[in-house]
Amino acid sequence: MIKVGIVGATGYTGVELLRLLATHPEVSLHIITSRTEAGMEVSELFPNLRGHIDLRFTEPDIDQLSTCDVVFFATPHGVGMEMVPTLIERGIRVIDLSADFRLRDPDLWQQWYNTPHNCPDLLSQAVYGLPELNREAIRSAQLIAVPGCYPTATQLGFLPLLEQGIIDPLHLIADAKSGVSGAGRKAAIGTLLTEASENMKAYAVTGHRHLPEIEQGLNMISHHPVKLTFVPHLTPMIRGIHATLYGRLTKVIDLQELFEQRYTDEPFVDVLPAGSHPETRSVRGSNTCRIAVHQPQQGDTVVVLSAIDNLVKGASGQAIQNMNIMFGFDESLAINDIAILP
Amino acid sequence: MIKVGIVGATGYTGVELLRLLATHPEVSLHIITSRTEAGMEVSELFPNLRGHIDLRFTEPDIDQLSTCDVVFFATPHGVGMEMVPTLIERGIRVIDLSADFRLRDPDLWQQWYNTPHNCPDLLSQAVYGLPELNREAIRSAQLIAVPGCYPTATQLGFLPLLEQGIIDPLHLIADAKSGVSGAGRKAAIGTLLTEASENMKAYAVTGHRHLPEIEQGLNMISHHPVKLTFVPHLTPMIRGIHATLYGRLTKVIDLQELFEQRYTDEPFVDVLPAGSHPETRSVRGSNTCRIAVHQPQQGDTVVVLSAIDNLVKGASGQAIQNMNIMFGFDESLAINDIAILP
Amino acid sequence: MIKVGIVGATGYTGVELLRLLATHPEVSLHIITSRTEAGMEVSELFPNLRGHIDLRFTEPDIDQLSTCDVVFFATPHGVGMEMVPTLIERGIRVIDLSADFRLRDPDLWQQWYNTPHNCPDLLSQAVYGLPELNREAIRSAQLIAVPGCYPTATQLGFLPLLEQGIIDPLHLIADAKSGVSGAGRKAAIGTLLTEASENMKAYAVTGHRHLPEIEQGLNMISHHPVKLTFVPHLTPMIRGIHATLYGRLTKVIDLQELFEQRYTDEPFVDVLPAGSHPETRSVRGSNTCRIAVHQPQQGDTVVVLSAIDNLVKGASGQAIQNMNIMFGFDESLAINDIAILP
Amino acid sequence: MIKVGIVGATGYTGVELLRLLATHPEVSLHIITSRTEAGMEVSELFPNLRGHIDLRFTEPDIDQLSTCDVVFFATPHGVGMEMVPTLIERGIRVIDLSADFRLRDPDLWQQWYNTPHNCPDLLSQAVYGLPELNREAIRSAQLIAVPGCYPTATQLGFLPLLEQGIIDPLHLIADAKSGVSGAGRKAAIGTLLTEASENMKAYAVTGHRHLPEIEQGLNMISHHPVKLTFVPHLTPMIRGIHATLYGRLTKVIDLQELFEQRYTDEPFVDVLPAGSHPETRSVRGSNTCRIAVHQPQQGDTVVVLSAIDNLVKGASGQAIQNMNIMFGFDESLAINDIAILP
Repeated sequence: MIKVGIVGATGYTGVELLRLLATHPEVSLHIITSRTEAGMEVSELFPNLRGHIDLRFTEPDIDQLSTCDVVFFATPHGVGMEMVPTLIERGIRVIDLSADFRLRDPDLWQQWYNTPHNCPDLLSQAVYGLPELNREAIRSAQLIAVPGCYPTATQLGFLPLLEQGIIDPLHLIADAKSGVSGAGRKAAIGTLLTEASENMKAYAVTGHRHLPEIEQGLNMISHHPVKLTFVPHLTPMIRGIHATLYGRLTKVIDLQELFEQRYTDEPFVDVLPAGSHPETRSVRGSNTCRIAVHQPQQGDTVVVLSAIDNLVKGASGQAIQNMNIMFGFDESLAINDIAILP
Repeated sequence: MIKVGIVGATGYTGVELLRLLATHPEVSLHIITSRTEAGMEVSELFPNLRGHIDLRFTEPDIDQLSTCDVVFFATPHGVGMEMVPTLIERGIRVIDLSADFRLRDPDLWQQWYNTPHNCPDLLSQAVYGLPELNREAIRSAQLIAVPGCYPTATQLGFLPLLEQGIIDPLHLIADAKSGVSGAGRKAAIGTLLTEASENMKAYAVTGHRHLPEIEQGLNMISHHPVKLTFVPHLTPMIRGIHATLYGRLTKVIDLQELFEQRYTDEPFVDVLPAGSHPETRSVRGSNTCRIAVHQPQQGDTVVVLSAIDNLVKGASGQAIQNMNIMFGFDESLAINDIAILP
Repeated sequence: MIKVGIVGATGYTGVELLRLLATHPEVSLHIITSRTEAGMEVSELFPNLRGHIDLRFTEPDIDQLSTCDVVFFATPHGVGMEMVPTLIERGIRVIDLSADFRLRDPDLWQQWYNTPHNCPDLLSQAVYGLPELNREAIRSAQLIAVPGCYPTATQLGFLPLLEQGIIDPLHLIADAKSGVSGAGRKAAIGTLLTEASENMKAYAVTGHRHLPEIEQGLNMISHHPVKLTFVPHLTPMIRGIHATLYGRLTKVIDLQELFEQRYTDEPFVDVLPAGSHPETRSVRGSNTCRIAVHQPQQGDTVVVLSAIDNLVKGASGQAIQNMNIMFGFDESLAINDIAILP
Repeated sequence: MIKVGIVGATGYTGVELLRLLATHPEVSLHIITSRTEAGMEVSELFPNLRGHIDLRFTEPDIDQLSTCDVVFFATPHGVGMEMVPTLIERGIRVIDLSADFRLRDPDLWQQWYNTPHNCPDLLSQAVYGLPELNREAIRSAQLIAVPGCYPTATQLGFLPLLEQGIIDPLHLIADAKSGVSGAGRKAAIGTLLTEASENMKAYAVTGHRHLPEIEQGLNMISHHPVKLTFVPHLTPMIRGIHATLYGRLTKVIDLQELFEQRYTDEPFVDVLPAGSHPETRSVRGSNTCRIAVHQPQQGDTVVVLSAIDNLVKGASGQAIQNMNIMFGFDESLAINDIAILP
């Protein structure tokens, strides 16, 4: 049993961490913090947890958090990097679900987040927590940067193609569709049901913060400079990301076999049979990424369809997958739920 | 480990049985039948089951089914009663999710289902599988009639009031709202997304088949003749039933305490604090019924709010709860999932 | 042509007023105010208006507004009553869509809105703008209080029964379901798509501000004291109210004929054939209220189903209907759109 | 006043034709046919039309239809081409909303529709009814093939780029998202609310019937062979198409100015200001196509966002736009509605 703390558990990645960790046989939920809701029972804010979790939110306190074996940060960007250095110094392991430690280049971070990074020295120490790419580094990591939701779906889709160097890395396109929970649990007009349901739109076409994260990840895979056009869309559903990826093929190869072999040992990547189309509902509530690969009309454009639950494989499930690897647990513990359908 | 068969597993109660039973530590899924899909892999029809269930649908065969310890029927009404008598004769236990064995009076059955009942003698033998009412009888039952979704939400809400005889039993009102999955997985125009989303309507106000089932159940509770006005509504969501129940109070009593005491030992009924409003999403994917009781403006009308997931506590979860009781397992085995929120 | 001003046009009743008035042949849109968005083009906030309205929001200015023939207030409660007295004094006609002038009793207003009323003397002068009840008074009114959305659907459903005195007025029940747009266009967590879709819940069972308004209206109809149990529900759709109304019959009468005769000359109330169930989508975007009346199992409970678009007949459409009556226009001008289906 | 007939008006393009034509001041609705619903009142099937249209469906009869000035076919493909030759011979004008006359090459038609074309000689006579491309030809046409929904959104987006020859025509990508009404009003499991809501998926990536139609149209525009990768997605909403289009720029040009100039005189194409993202809800119920053009990170990939209501500009509205042009009416008559928002 390890002692677990969660900082900032009032958002959607927070409640999802709680839902999953509540059933983890090796985890003792120790501390759940929230500045705004300190004192409130967790199950009052999230009634689905009634009868399963009877803790209260507490004020974040660095000394209390230091009694944990691992601390999850489910905070907006900029918050974690205030407390993380102290925890790292004290030997506590940290799994950060925010964007604070995803980019290795502090200048790039500052450019996209409009403020200097607080602890740039930790950026090189942080391990990018995509197990399909970095499983060994994760095992011994002290600080994990959990990938973003779009980056997870996109990188898992491009990974086999770029590793083999069979597409033009300078002309990648990711047309990604996300459910509204990707915008978080915060009062805003644009994500009201009245604004976001019965509606489809692209947003941030001029530049989304997940773009540099994806390009950095794909650069590591391809060993060649990568250029991505990334167009996210707000889709009228709660959960799910569907990334439709386009690449220009430069070599002839059996794409179906490539994908199946690449992911044959991965517990959470499911390559569908040839001709398939993954549905986001087939992964709702589960940690699986389902992928299909197509070559329409046998042309030179490859189309990869990649579907995840943005709150599970795209956030909290993947965070726990990292924790399982870090502590030598079975990698699937507590995150092996079957998707709810319908 | 017991051997389990499922007849008619291509509908929504079928896939939900599969999702839940796949994680049951005492269950070996033995046979999954479907006349229409025989030969197909179960996970081809229900992609959420990929990697979790690798059985194929088979033609229903009474001899094969007779090798099971228990057989679930997730069939439309009229189908189970063709095979159930033989299985009962052979000593197999049967849990029927359809309406075939819910009504004790064969004439009433014929009146509402427009065809004579096939095995009326079994009606008196069947146990109505509402554990909160019939737990002891369920333990030794050979044939369980799993309550309908509306009847589950409605009976659990009225039960404490009628047991205590504190409302007028001749003027009960149940205004019930159901998600579209209650209509099943069958091609129909009325339940297309284009017809049922962004829409609210009542239906079957002149008479719904769950009315006699509810009245029969409430009659057993109240020991007085009961008369119910039942108005179901089709609600634009996939899962969930919200029953809003109205009764005329005939005695003054602490309603909150009544409900809390009645359900204090029930693992799957959660009485919310005074002043609460249960949400269907707080039980999505879970076997819990959440209930709140109100007395608006301290008048003589009591309002009970009762929320369930129609496919879990209203069908497949409750069926497994019955199985757990019948076989002496922990009552919560495989049905203790936390609701998915958001 | 009359000059029209709209105060507070950044909410949903505001944009709906604009959509409808833009096509009104007798109306010149003169002033559209918003404190928060002054200077912005109206069509920048509401892109559906691009090409149809090219005004900008301006700061509300009492002198400018005084140049209008009629001013609509589409403001939150408490705002209109600051400016209305001056406009009334200057002879401008006012149509208020907020709750400020709906209750005739200033003490009752204070009790439900937690602040004293600003101009209690105007309360008796204001005409409650339900044309089916008050058409003659509306014609010559200077100040109209447009009924709330729930009150419109509920009163139109109970009206024929109470006028004839054939139901027990002390035990009325209104179980009402509203789309999320009823909560307005304001940043809030509870009405995010992630919170309100795939969900059904009752709210404010202990007391909703529309309760005194409905009771006041029904009291005028029935000439007997009325007692209502009112339970509103938040329904996962954008538009629409479905009120399901229950009354105890005290006399035998042909209910279908009663309703058809009562509304035979009403342009915006449609009594459906016997046995029907109105759908909210059948009135989406239109000013019609569709009603069906049932007597289940020929018992003594009457069930009325009443469906409106909460933003049209429940707000802006009805406001324009009032304006048409006040200025002697054809009552249907600009509000005779056919509902959009699907 | 012209006499109008509609063949096959029981689908969604049918009811949308009825909704729009009911308000057309120059149109007399004469005949509405349906084999399956002959005898039924139109407003019984489509309750939104109650009080607006009091015709009944009749059996399609070629002699009766020949008394019309123009006949719309809102039928599945393969139906119209049975009756159209006779009507054309008799001098009746025909506007076909199906796919029967969209492709000019009968072999291509047979390849994609798996049956020989019935009247291949009419294919060259038919005018492809995209007014922004073919307005003059439409004016005098006797037979109009109304473009498909995806083809309308896609062609309007690519048109300025291909006319100017500034993108590589061999590597076009259209990632298109459609609401479920695109699948029509027919009983099917895949488009049930329970299957299609809270879900996103691509479909027909291996080949969709709109692909040859789009390529044919783009070929006419570009005068160079065109190759398109077309990936349609089923999106959880009723109405709307959002096409996200990608092209490789071959010349430097002011894209915003190009689009604004190309469409400056078009009543139903709205080019948004630079940096905008059109929303499908901003055109819901309206005949407008809203377009934005982007060049992310000033790279060589151009991104065009194109949004329409698939049932209006993508079908029935555009059909009426064609009719208005053919008969010399104001092009906007009856199709100038403002989109409903929210």
